[in-house]
Parts: sequence; C-alpha cells; structure tokens
Amino acid sequence: MQTLKSNNESNSEAERRIERLSLHLNPILNLTWNHHPLEMENCSRGKKLIVDANSLTGYMRGKYRDIQEKVFDYFNANPQLQTPLEISKDNHRELCMNQLLGLVREAGIRPLHYVVHDPAKYFAILEAVGSVDMSLGIKMGVQYSLWGGSVINLGTQKHKDKYYDGMDNLDFPGCFAMTELHHGSNVQGLQTVATFDPITDEFIVDTPNDGAIKWWIGNAAVHGKFATVFARLKLPNYDAKGISDMGVHAFIVPIRDMKTHQTLPGIEIHDCGHKVGLNGVDNGALRFRSVRIPRDNLLNRFGDVSRDGQYTSTLPSVNKRFGATLGELVGGRVGLAYSSVSVLKVAATIAIRYSLIRQQFGPPNQPEVTILDYQSHQHKLMPMLASTYAFHFATTNLVEKYAQMKKSHDEELVADVHALSAGLKAYVTSYTAKSLSICREACGGHGYAAVNRFGSLRNDHDIFQTFEGDNTVLLQQYRTSRLLHSVAVRLQKHSKPLGQFGAWNRCLNHLLTLAESHIESVILAKFIEAVQSCPDPSAQAALKLVCDLYALDRIWNDIGTYRNVDYVAPNKAKAIHKLSEYLSFQVRNIAKELVDAFDLPDHVTRAPIAKQSGAYSQYTQYVGFE
Amino acid sequence: MQTLKSNNESNSEAERRIERLSLHLNPILNLTWNHHPLEMENCSRGKKLIVDANSLTGYMRGKYRDIQEKVFDYFNANPQLQTPLEISKDNHRELCMNQLLGLVREAGIRPLHYVVHDPAKYFAILEAVGSVDMSLGIKMGVQYSLWGGSVINLGTQKHKDKYYDGMDNLDFPGCFAMTELHHGSNVQGLQTVATFDPITDEFIVDTPNDGAIKWWIGNAAVHGKFATVFARLKLPNYDAKGISDMGVHAFIVPIRDMKTHQTLPGIEIHDCGHKVGLNGVDNGALRFRSVRIPRDNLLNRFGDVSRDGQYTSTLPSVNKRFGATLGELVGGRVGLAYSSVSVLKVAATIAIRYSLIRQQFGPPNQPEVTILDYQSHQHKLMPMLASTYAFHFATTNLVEKYAQMKKSHDEELVADVHALSAGLKAYVTSYTAKSLSICREACGGHGYAAVNRFGSLRNDHDIFQTFEGDNTVLLQQYRTSRLLHSVAVRLQKHSKPLGQFGAWNRCLNHLLTLAESHIESVILAKFIEAVQSCPDPSAQAALKLVCDLYALDRIWNDIGTYRNVDYVAPNKAKAIHKLSEYLSFQVRNIAKELVDAFDLPDHVTRAPIAKQSGAYSQYTQYVGFE
Repeated sequence: MQTLKSNNESNSEAERRIERLSLHLNPILNLTWNHHPLEMENCSRGKKLIVDANSLTGYMRGKYRDIQEKVFDYFNANPQLQTPLEISKDNHRELCMNQLLGLVREAGIRPLHYVVHDPAKYFAILEAVGSVDMSLGIKMGVQYSLWGGSVINLGTQKHKDKYYDGMDNLDFPGCFAMTELHHGSNVQGLQTVATFDPITDEFIVDTPNDGAIKWWIGNAAVHGKFATVFARLKLPNYDAKGISDMGVHAFIVPIRDMKTHQTLPGIEIHDCGHKVGLNGVDNGALRFRSVRIPRDNLLNRFGDVSRDGQYTSTLPSVNKRFGATLGELVGGRVGLAYSSVSVLKVAATIAIRYSLIRQQFGPPNQPEVTILDYQSHQHKLMPMLASTYAFHFATTNLVEKYAQMKKSHDEELVADVHALSAGLKAYVTSYTAKSLSICREACGGHGYAAVNRFGSLRNDHDIFQTFEGDNTVLLQQYRTSRLLHSVAVRLQKHSKPLGQFGAWNRCLNHLLTLAESHIESVILAKFIEAVQSCPDPSAQAALKLVCDLYALDRIWNDIGTYRNVDYVAPNKAKAIHKLSEYLSFQVRNIAKELVDAFDLPDHVTRAPIAKQSGAYSQYTQYVGFE
Repeated sequence: MQTLKSNNESNSEAERRIERLSLHLNPILNLTWNHHPLEMENCSRGKKLIVDANSLTGYMRGKYRDIQEKVFDYFNANPQLQTPLEISKDNHRELCMNQLLGLVREAGIRPLHYVVHDPAKYFAILEAVGSVDMSLGIKMGVQYSLWGGSVINLGTQKHKDKYYDGMDNLDFPGCFAMTELHHGSNVQGLQTVATFDPITDEFIVDTPNDGAIKWWIGNAAVHGKFATVFARLKLPNYDAKGISDMGVHAFIVPIRDMKTHQTLPGIEIHDCGHKVGLNGVDNGALRFRSVRIPRDNLLNRFGDVSRDGQYTSTLPSVNKRFGATLGELVGGRVGLAYSSVSVLKVAATIAIRYSLIRQQFGPPNQPEVTILDYQSHQHKLMPMLASTYAFHFATTNLVEKYAQMKKSHDEELVADVHALSAGLKAYVTSYTAKSLSICREACGGHGYAAVNRFGSLRNDHDIFQTFEGDNTVLLQQYRTSRLLHSVAVRLQKHSKPLGQFGAWNRCLNHLLTLAESHIESVILAKFIEAVQSCPDPSAQAALKLVCDLYALDRIWNDIGTYRNVDYVAPNKAKAIHKLSEYLSFQVRNIAKELVDAFDLPDHVTRAPIAKQSGAYSQYTQYVGFE
C-alpha cells in the first residue's frame, strides 16, 4: 500500500479495493458466475433464507439500550413535551429547551457526565434524543459536546471548577461561537480578535468588520448565557510591529446577564431566523464591540498568557496549536456520523415497511403486487438497506475507537479516529441525505404527508452535510489524500505556472473520488469483520448476503472506473450487475427481518404508514375517519 | 432505429446516442483530443469566451414575458399577498386562496381562457405564479388545469355552458378527485363506484371500502364546491351478472353547499393535514355514502348513458375509453416539466451567484479564492447549469408542441406529446429534485437559512416526482419501451414459468435505464437544434459550449455502459472526463452571463445571498444588523 508501482494512482486504489473485495467475494463470485445466472433464468430465483430475527436483533442492538429506553419512556410519559407537526419557530425553541430541561432535571439524565466518562453512552443518548426531535439532539449537542466539550477539552482545571456544574445542570446554557459570516470551513481565516490589555489584565473582544460577525451560533438567539468564542489572540509587544497575532484561540465570553437575561454591554445579538429544518434550535448572530473579559477566560490548555502579557505554550507553532485545538473537537463528527446512521435506519424502516404493505398493479386478472416485489423498487431500497447495515458497523466501531482514544490518548488511535471520523461523517451524511429523498419518493404521495416523517427527517438532517466541516472539505482531510500527495506533486511538475494550489485544484475531483473509494473499502472491511464475528449461523448468513450486496453495489456504481483500468472484464461487469440484482431480490425476501433487527418500535418510527399492524387504518384514523 | 442488428438492446441504444453525439461533438472531440489536453497543462486554460449577455437573454426569454411581469408587478404592489417564511397551515391556505382571487379578480388574469385558447401562455402564467409561491401555482393548476380542464376536455357543451363562468371567476372552486388511498399510479384499479339508477335518472356515488377513500384531493379540505370524481360506471342490466362495470369515468359531484359552504349530505371530508411542502394547498380526503347526482353530471365526451340506461360510446373498448380520458389530462405533465425547469433556474441562479461572491481558503499568503474557482465546486454546479439550459429548450419545445396538438389534434403529434411529456416530466423533475439538494449544500450554512429559498423550493418541488404519475411508472410509458418490448419477449422465452409480468419485472431496471438514455438523447437533440438556430454568433458560441458540456457530462455519467459495450476506448473515456472538467472550467468563466440570461431579477430570486449587489450586507440587514 505504501509503495506505488505505477504512475496511475487510481489503478493502485482500484487494486486495493478489488483485492479486499476478492478476499470476501471470491466464493460467491466463483460459485455464482458458474451457476447462478442459469439458475436465475430457469428456477424460481433460489430459496428464501430463514433468519432468526431475534438473534440478529441481539447482535445489532447497542450496548446502551437501557438508557435509550429511559429516554423514550420519559417522552412517552410526557406528551406535552412531544413536538407537534405544526409549531412556530419561537414555540419550538421554548419547547426544545423544556425537553432538554426535562431530560436533565426530571429524567435525571446527565449528558455531561458521559461526555467526560463514557462517550459511547453519550452518543447512544444523543441517538435516542435525536429520534424524539432532531432539534433536541442538536440543542443537546450544542450544550454538552460544543459548549461543554470546549470548556472541558480546551480549558484547564480552573474552568472545570467554575463551569462544570452549571453546564451539567443547565444553569449555564452556552454557545460555541466559531463560524463567522465570511468564514465557516476556513477556521484559520476567522477575524474576530481578542487583544490582551496588560493594564486591566483583560482581553478585549472585537468584531473588526461585518464579515467577522459570528453566525449560526446555536443557543445564542434565545437561551445562551455564555459563549466559547474563537478569536485571534493578539498581544501588544514593543517591537516594530507593535502587536503579535498568536492565531485562533478560544475564550469564554459571558453574553447575557445571569439574573435579568439581558444581553451584556458591547454585545449585539440577532436571530438568524428560520432555517430549512432544526427550528427548535435558536441560532443567532453576534457582534462584539470592545467586550472585556478577565484573562482567566482564555481556555488555556494549549496556550496561555501570563499576567505580564507573555505567551507560553507546550506546542511550538501556531499551526500545531490550531491543530491541537480543533483536534479536541473531533467528537462532533463522530456524533454526526453515528446519528446520521440512525436517521437512515428510521427512514429505511418506514419506506420498507410501507413498501411491504403497499400494492399496485400486477399481472392481468390477478391480485395486485406488493411494490417491494418490483425490481425497480428493490433497486431503490435494497442496496440502501445493505448500506445501512454497513454504516451501522462502521460507525459503531468508530464510536468504540473514539471512546478508547479518550482514555488512552494513543497517538496512532488519535490519527485513526481523526481520519475515520472525517471520512465517515462526509460519506455517511451525504448518503443519508440522498436516501431520504429516495425513501420519500418510494412511498409516493403518502410519503409526502408530514406525519410520515420524511420531510422533517430530511430538513433536519440536511445540514449534517455542512455541520462540523463541509463534506467536500472534510473528504480532503482524509489521510488517503496524504498518500496521494504525490499526484499533486507530479501534476505540479507538469504545470509549474499553476503553483501548488493550482495543481491541487486541478486534480481536486480526482482526489475526492479517491477519498470516497477509500472510505468505501474501509466501511466494507468493518462490515466483513462484523460478519465474521457474528456468533449465530442464521444471522451470519443474512449478514453475509447483505454484505455481498453492499460490496457489489459499490463496485457497480463505479463500474466505469473499473472498466477504464481494465480490472473488470466486460462479461464480469455484466455478471456483477446481474448478481447485484439477484442479491437485491434475495435481500428483499428477508427485508422485514432485516428491518425489524434495527429494533425501532412504532413509537420511535411514528409514521402511520409504517405501523407494524393496521398501517392503513391508523393512517385513516389519523386524518379523522372513524 | 427500427431494426435491431444484435440481441443486445443496450448496444443499439448506445449506438443511437453515440451517433447523435458524434455528429455534434466530432469537431471538438477531434480538435480537442489532439490539442487541448496539452494546452490545458501548459497554458492558463484557454481564453475566456466573450458573451453578449443581452443577446443571449433575448434568445432565451419567453414569448410571454409581458404577462409574467404583470404577475410579478401585481404581487410586488400587494405585499399583504406575499407569503411570509413562517405561516400556519390554515393561514397559508387562506392566503393562497386570496392570492388566486387577487390574480383573477383584481389583476384580471383569467387562466381558464388560456387553458382553452393559448396553453403556452397559460404555462407562462403558471411559471410566474409558481415563482411567487409554488402553493399558488399548484392551487391554480388544480382549479384550472385539473378541475377546469377535466370539465372542458372530458365534458360536452352542456357542461361548459353550466360551469365555464363559475370556474373562470372562481365562484366555483373545484377539485379533481382521482387518487384513492389504495390507488395512485394504478388508475384503472380505482374502486369508487357510480351506479346508474334508472328510476330517478341519477348516479349513486359510493366509496365501497376505506381503501377507496379519495385522498390528496387539492381544494377539497377547505375551498372546493365541486369535484370531478373518477369512479367505475356501473349499469344495472338484466342478464345473469346483474350489473355491468363500464370502467372508470368522470362525474361532477357537488361537495359543498353553494351558500352555506356546508359539506353536502353523504359526503365526509377530512383534512389530509400537513405535508412536506405546498401547505398553501388544502388537500382533503373524501368518502361518499350513496351520493346522488343527476345523469347529466357524467362527463360524457367519450361515453354516455341514455335515459333508459344504455351505454353509448364512439370508442370500442374500456381500455380505449380509459386511454382517451387520461389522454386529455396530459397538460398536467407538460406543466410540471416546464415548471420544474423554472424551479431549477431559480436554484441554480441562487447557488451560482452566491458561489461567485463567496470566498474561502486560497494559496498561502494570497487572497482567498472564489469558491466557484474550485474544481470540485465547478463539478457540482456547471454540468447542472448546462442541464438547465438543455431542459429549457426541451420543455419550451414541448409546450409549443402541446399548443399545436390542442389546435390540430394531429395523431402523430398526440403520440409524440404523450411520450415526450411523460419522459421529460420524469427525467426533469428527478434531476431538479437532486439538484436542489446539491445547490443547498453548495451554499453551505447560508444555504440552510430559510430566507435563501432552497428549503421551500425543495419541499414544494419534491412531490413533482409523484404528481401526475410516479416518475418510475412514467418512464415505462415512454415509447422506447415499446421498441424494447422485444427484450421482454426474449426474456419470456427463457423464463416461461415467470409469465409475461414476471419477465417484464425481471428486466425492469434495464428498461428504465434505456428510457432514461433515450430521453437524454431527445433532450440533446433539441439542444443542438437550439444552438443551430441561435442568430447571434457570440450567444451561439456560448450555447455550443454549454451544449458540449451537457453531452459529455451525460456520457461520463454512464461511462460504465459505454465501456462495457466497448463503444468508448479507455483512453477516449479518460479524454471525455478531462474534457468535461475543462468545459466546466470554461463554462465557469461565463457562468455569470449564463445565469443572467435566465432573466430572473432579484425580486423573483429573493434570496439575500444571491442579490446582484451587496448580497452580504442585505443578508446582515435581513437578520437585524444595521
């Protein structure tokens, strides 16, 4: 993998994928290409696999099911806390805050404890809370992962002593003020400044221009009392330049009075207004005008300023400090990748359960056919179901790795989690976003009823592609791109006038494709491991089938690349296509069991068209028929 | 085209596409493959085309711009009629009705007149109205295309005499009650019955079971006074069977009292509730219990019942009558394809205008780069811009053909419009739906602000994929599938046990792919015609470039197929890819002019981030900064 045989990077990537796939697929590829195609024509398409759904559920079910059920039970017992289909923005925000307060103060679930001591359990809570209302999931994430996480991970003991309890019990609702109007992805380009004043021992926080207004800051428009503000730390010095820019640091800035809740002097807050989704979250825009904060409010784990204005850090450069700072925030990406899979599970479950009861057309003078029996419908939903399984294992593994990393701080693990979280977040959220539209369409008109969930799932999830790093930008952080740096170097040689940036831009599409291919094979490798570790033979056989479909579907999606480098002969390409249609058909035969194994009861899926009994009658009753 | 040389249908389809493309592309393929690739490496990527944006606008601009401006002016002058970002479902419905009343009674725009006499002008009004609020576009479509159109096209003179004026001036708001809870796509499977009672000379309309409840009926939940109800016409006769089912016919059923607006006896109406989008339209569910209507209320153009219960028709069979009935409703599909392109224009304009002002990252120590200068961003938006142009010409042509068809009733034209409207509606609406998500993502966080339009555009447009026929079902109506019937026949020979339905299902994915390929080449053919007809040389050069990008992008999307049948050699495949990246770059250089030529002023696009001057400052002012 480290030494490249040819100049053609995509060959090398294709080689790796094919190698990995062939290890796994050889048995079916060999067997099937010799026998199945004929059988497919001449027999009734093989036998239905018998799956023990319970043992599959047991294998899939998360370790933290108990606390998830506690979340579900709490909201089921408190219907006044459930979000109605129609609610104004302002009421939704109040409701969302009350949901969070209820969870923390009544149900006694204390997320900050798990952020610090058991991240995997924290993500499980986040998943359950997000299925109640994704706005609540994000609101909780802002309070505990972002505001809480930034204080704990970027601050030192003095900050924990002062803020932990208030963050934990929601006396101190807070914000994470990083993004600016002009800068989202390019965090190093942030322009807000915090200048040290050695006379008063304070930092003065300023918004130097409108482009530096903090924008999209969750919890800022209504509820926040504090904000972690990312700003360029400036120190006065006495050389020719007059002032030193130490790069982006994080500061705690109180934004509202603890008693009156009035906005504090020098701080201007406006409401960012309606969003496509997540309207339960109060995103605001903040401008600072000479806001003075004590020196202690610098979150000083990676860099500090002494009373006399001297800068100290264990890290040698601006870039190293910036990397360490952002590195502590990787949990957000882990959470988004993981939650995105749970959104995909809900959507796939609704679409598949409905497709199993919906009938339309059929052979002449015979009963109508269940729409999931149509090849075209299987093609829409079965590879998606297979991907959901693949992503389940990949993100579960990521969460485990992240939890280990927080304990061990092992360097290799840190690098692995960083790369994996960026790649999986980008790949999975893009896939889920597309799938939500496919699921809606697969359910036709009834998929357009708000009560059947696809609208809110899609609108709420949509921004997952942008949150915590734009997907296109994130894919480039993937470590494969380091491996592939040589491509850029070569291109650079050929095109000196373009410079390194131009050369990189010239092969950007190529790099993105390689990053996607790479993350696909990582996901497949995790899936294969999960199949191999499954203790129950019938569950294992089902998982093997699903894994095969996942692998073949990905190859088929990219068949042009494989064919271009002649890694797959034309007849093999056709066989791959036929086989993936055949596997879709086989997966369809156990689709009910595969969906049941996601363990989503009706009170979580909620959509009337997906109820496990009497879906149509629950739907007619919902609109008012008796 | 008619005789197939080989057994491989996809070869034949690929052959047609390549033939058509090569006619158009040969000059650039030959020229470019010899020269450009090297130039690309060694020079500053060619010269920017100079485009005279005005002459391009002139060529693109619709014939009916005057009436569109009348629509825009009316709503600009009546801010109380503009839809706010936050509005309850019930208020939105009232507002939407008031918008329509204002348009018809105050602005004096009478859509029904154009439905009958100038369909192209009607579609232009629909486009303008849809850009004000898509709910209004659909509400207008329900009243005039569906309710009005069904009475005019399926009824006879007596119906026009009685209903025309009331439909025209909105005294008679009406519904189109076709879809049932259990049947959307399969209209022949509808179960509502209308049984003739020869004693009272009436039809008795009944909902025989809950699955036959009319569902999603626009205008039914609140405003409708009448409904065109599709039901199985049953005639009592005196043979052994006792009753004859004459198939699905359309009937006018009064549903609410003209004075009190109370629901009439025997009719139960419920509100279908919140939808993913289009909440200004009041969709309802209707159940009929022995509702009696006069015999005259049968819309009797294609089949009639005499006073003594005898059925007469100029058409010989149930299937022919059903085909003629549905055939009259093709205007809906034409309108959706056409409106979908206008949604795509708005979205592409917003995304591209913003991408031209947004800057992020850049070479070290140099100013940040406009995001549209990134290859990955060009890849997202430039082929989409090219497709928008392609669809513009294809749907404009469809509207012209439809208008001719309504005048001439020429049989060949009828067949052509039917096939083309099904194919274009399915292809264009699917493409637009995907593109709306890509545009949102391309604008990052600011694309998620509701005021920047992507949310409502996507939510409102989403159902275009299902309206007037599910896209997957529609693609199969495309006439190519007749041409390809032989595939099914062959498959049938090989798989007798499956029967014709099973054999068709077994090659359904294949048929759908072929239908898509075919519609792509039809669109390309229209685009090439439009390029050739363009009188201004600079506009023509720009269109040619855009057309080349459209063609190459489609080939590249499907490169696996081309490679599998060895129509494109590996080195040519690579060259196609490089060339389409190069053309994307060239199109980027004239992206501003190409978008300006869509002729969408700021008061139509509305998104602050897409304002043609001071976008950022309009955005900060919008949220409340001074």
